[in-house]
Amino acid sequence: MTNEVFVHPQAINESAEVGPGTRIWAFAHVMKRAVVGARCNIGDHAFIESGARIGNGVIIKNGVAVWEGVVLEDGVFAGPFAVFTNDRFPRSRAGGYATRRYADKRWLEPTVVREGATLGANCTVMCGAVIGRFAMVAANAFVRGRVPDFALVAGTPARIIGHVCACGLRLPPAGELRCGDCGLEYERAGEGLRMKEGRRT
Amino acid sequence: MTNEVFVHPQAINESAEVGPGTRIWAFAHVMKRAVVGARCNIGDHAFIESGARIGNGVIIKNGVAVWEGVVLEDGVFAGPFAVFTNDRFPRSRAGGYATRRYADKRWLEPTVVREGATLGANCTVMCGAVIGRFAMVAANAFVRGRVPDFALVAGTPARIIGHVCACGLRLPPAGELRCGDCGLEYERAGEGLRMKEGRRT
Amino acid sequence: MTNEVFVHPQAINESAEVGPGTRIWAFAHVMKRAVVGARCNIGDHAFIESGARIGNGVIIKNGVAVWEGVVLEDGVFAGPFAVFTNDRFPRSRAGGYATRRYADKRWLEPTVVREGATLGANCTVMCGAVIGRFAMVAANAFVRGRVPDFALVAGTPARIIGHVCACGLRLPPAGELRCGDCGLEYERAGEGLRMKEGRRT
Repeated sequence: MTNEVFVHPQAINESAEVGPGTRIWAFAHVMKRAVVGARCNIGDHAFIESGARIGNGVIIKNGVAVWEGVVLEDGVFAGPFAVFTNDRFPRSRAGGYATRRYADKRWLEPTVVREGATLGANCTVMCGAVIGRFAMVAANAFVRGRVPDFALVAGTPARIIGHVCACGLRLPPAGELRCGDCGLEYERAGEGLRMKEGRRT
Repeated sequence: MTNEVFVHPQAINESAEVGPGTRIWAFAHVMKRAVVGARCNIGDHAFIESGARIGNGVIIKNGVAVWEGVVLEDGVFAGPFAVFTNDRFPRSRAGGYATRRYADKRWLEPTVVREGATLGANCTVMCGAVIGRFAMVAANAFVRGRVPDFALVAGTPARIIGHVCACGLRLPPAGELRCGDCGLEYERAGEGLRMKEGRRT
Repeated sequence: MTNEVFVHPQAINESAEVGPGTRIWAFAHVMKRAVVGARCNIGDHAFIESGARIGNGVIIKNGVAVWEGVVLEDGVFAGPFAVFTNDRFPRSRAGGYATRRYADKRWLEPTVVREGATLGANCTVMCGAVIGRFAMVAANAFVRGRVPDFALVAGTPARIIGHVCACGLRLPPAGELRCGDCGLEYERAGEGLRMKEGRRT
């Protein structure tokens, strides 16, 4: 661990707001005023736009573009080629077809990914989504709206197919909600879960 | 606006056929003989192949590769990681399994995206597709064949789920086809729409 | 053909194990100890990780990341933005939520793509998959588990929708399994095919 930001010689970092220990790999581009926490890993060919906000310990795998309006809380894992959006009905501004809508920031719709959540490889996150704490979006899923805490969602559009532990492993579909690997226990909370006995991760 | 082509210091532009005011961003690559119009925006990590043809005012978001055989007319918006194809049954040529088919250009199948259309984030466009004027392909959709003018298509495979205004906003599913935002009026034309009263965008 | 490895001036090749005649294009990155055979083509913005193993005559199109644990046999075609995975339930290691699982290589799950197979554009391959010889994964498909030799699979999740010749073209769904283009003949073998008369490609 280091207090320096590592920037690969063939990466571009234009932000003064990148935390210590964060590494930015080859052909990645962090724009001016993008906020990136400490101990993050920004993979090759990733792109962090001005106005994106990324917490501590976040993993951005290869080819992920994080736009203005996207918030990734601490410990999020964004899998390779997970795709974000921030405009529900985009048009070319250069085309001049939507000058009214693009006159201000009405077009911009935020996305929030809560602490510890995982976005699977090649998933697509429609703007307006709120992905709950430690939720897991399966590879290739198409996510809109709210994903409950600790929920595992998959498909197009994504549906809840189970629940996962903070460690990422699936919890048994019935009976005691206890992780077979790390022993953490959960209880139901709406369509999601919460940790038992005040043991918050 | 400028009459110059802007090429980011870490982009590669090898084409002499890029129009004035077009900007080519970091780690993007425009190949020799690729045709790109004026006032386009070619995002980070985009790739424009020799033989691609791109009109004026086209937005190519991050990570989009535009192949030989793909035509994007004026004002098209290609969302992040929209994926084109130009070979329906690709094999490795280096493998030598399809030397007959690759002896000429039989394998090459074109794609056309008409004026003002939008391709959503992470969508996939099968070669042979013709995307109509101002049509909108939803994020994550898988498009084959023809998409009518002003149609909104979504899903795998993509189906028509509504219609949109030239400005991008959805039109009411029933009753008067009038955009609530910009007031433009439409009438049905097959499975697509056209503008009323000769008001062509 | 040359015995040299071609590395584009804006590519990065850190591996000493790249075979003769292989070309590595702009903004691609081949890491240390990645094994790449002869006569491969590594497209722009591709990424080959340490621990990936790639045979001879393999085509890696733009934006494909080949991770540790992924094996691509001779003559594979990986279409643009085909996405691999190697961890079924990923979490941020920097988040510290799964220190037990990431203490060793338990998390790593391999993927094998057999000789001559094709992965379509923007498909997603879940780790643990074994893609059979000359199988074809359609564009946008989501593949898990085993894909039989010469099978054509499509959809989410991918299902067998037909069979293809070694040259890539579809075989007739009924009657004689003979390629209309190159004349090769096949017979059924489980859910897949094999070449007739000991004519192995």
